[in-house]
Amino acid sequence: MKLYGYFRSSAAFRVRIALNLKNLSYETVSIHLRRSEQARPEYLARNPQGLVPTLEEDDGHRLIQSLAIVEYLDEIHPAPPLLPAGAADRARVRALAEIVACDIHPINNLRVLRYLAHTLGHDEAAIGAWYNHWIDAGFAALEPLLAMDPRTGRFCHGDTPGLADIALVPQVVNAGRYRLEMTAYPTIARIFANCMALAPFAAACPENQPDREA
Amino acid sequence: MKLYGYFRSSAAFRVRIALNLKNLSYETVSIHLRRSEQARPEYLARNPQGLVPTLEEDDGHRLIQSLAIVEYLDEIHPAPPLLPAGAADRARVRALAEIVACDIHPINNLRVLRYLAHTLGHDEAAIGAWYNHWIDAGFAALEPLLAMDPRTGRFCHGDTPGLADIALVPQVVNAGRYRLEMTAYPTIARIFANCMALAPFAAACPENQPDREA
Repeated sequence: MKLYGYFRSSAAFRVRIALNLKNLSYETVSIHLRRSEQARPEYLARNPQGLVPTLEEDDGHRLIQSLAIVEYLDEIHPAPPLLPAGAADRARVRALAEIVACDIHPINNLRVLRYLAHTLGHDEAAIGAWYNHWIDAGFAALEPLLAMDPRTGRFCHGDTPGLADIALVPQVVNAGRYRLEMTAYPTIARIFANCMALAPFAAACPENQPDREA
Repeated sequence: MKLYGYFRSSAAFRVRIALNLKNLSYETVSIHLRRSEQARPEYLARNPQGLVPTLEEDDGHRLIQSLAIVEYLDEIHPAPPLLPAGAADRARVRALAEIVACDIHPINNLRVLRYLAHTLGHDEAAIGAWYNHWIDAGFAALEPLLAMDPRTGRFCHGDTPGLADIALVPQVVNAGRYRLEMTAYPTIARIFANCMALAPFAAACPENQPDREA
């Protein structure tokens, strides 16, 4: 299996965590986003969206979109499960993941920040304020959804890590980019620390990837 | 069942389509986004994210995030299915839906457009260009993913409507807002027309909602 990704991509980071939690081995193919390798024809042939990640199985079957990939891995490799058993609990975990994957991360993605800088002419301070604004908006919802629900445990849902943690951890790492103040989010910070103590999460971090840069 | 939504919200539109396809009756509770009713304490108690939709079941159980809600409805009311049976096909359908639900719609959501206008001071022309830029980026990927895959049929996946169509149709409706040129997307346009010929899609459209405005 080949994972086309980039060390800093949080969508690729999610898939790396899922592969590690499932104990699946894979080969990293680095697509250097800052050098726009995702826009080259040979990559667009694999993923017409020109985003990472793309997961390519040994038979050539390709998968795109990180949440869809994680759900796929969970369906074909059910142990350990990344989603709980009941429909209501699954809906909760998917919703927590989508708060990050739909309503925070895409608004702060590299291509959007580039549009703000190059097309709209904003400076680094305006971009940093934008970046933290959308993380704050999402975390301000996630914090009570986690803190006030008895289903939250050591992780977002119970005491084993799953889809919501897979989405949350890369977003908390991103929150360090413009030094977001995390004191208002103690439950998120606690779950993040619990995840980072696990090898599948730590090994998936940007700084532990073969294509990492300073 | 109560659906807290807004006639123009495309995330609420998705859930309306799913409820209609499942032939489930529901009561509409209008949350007027332009009057910021989503930020009132009584709504935030239902959905701390302050976004629509929220689906509230008769026992008070609440669900948020449109894709998570659609998957939930599909799990507890399996017929007609909104996802195909095989894991690879399910991953395809989820990825098509997520191209819209993660990588187009949130970047063009009302709160983002308000930030561009009020915080960053952009005019209507710049906002229209932004809006169409992100739809074009997503549709330019969706078009070949649909046109070049034999699994595409009358709808995004085969000849029955499902999750990908539920995401796509509201986005095509949104594309009319700043009159996006659709000629480059004939497959998307064909599938949209096929969907709109079905009562569950037509009845879910903004102009057919009780809280519609001119």
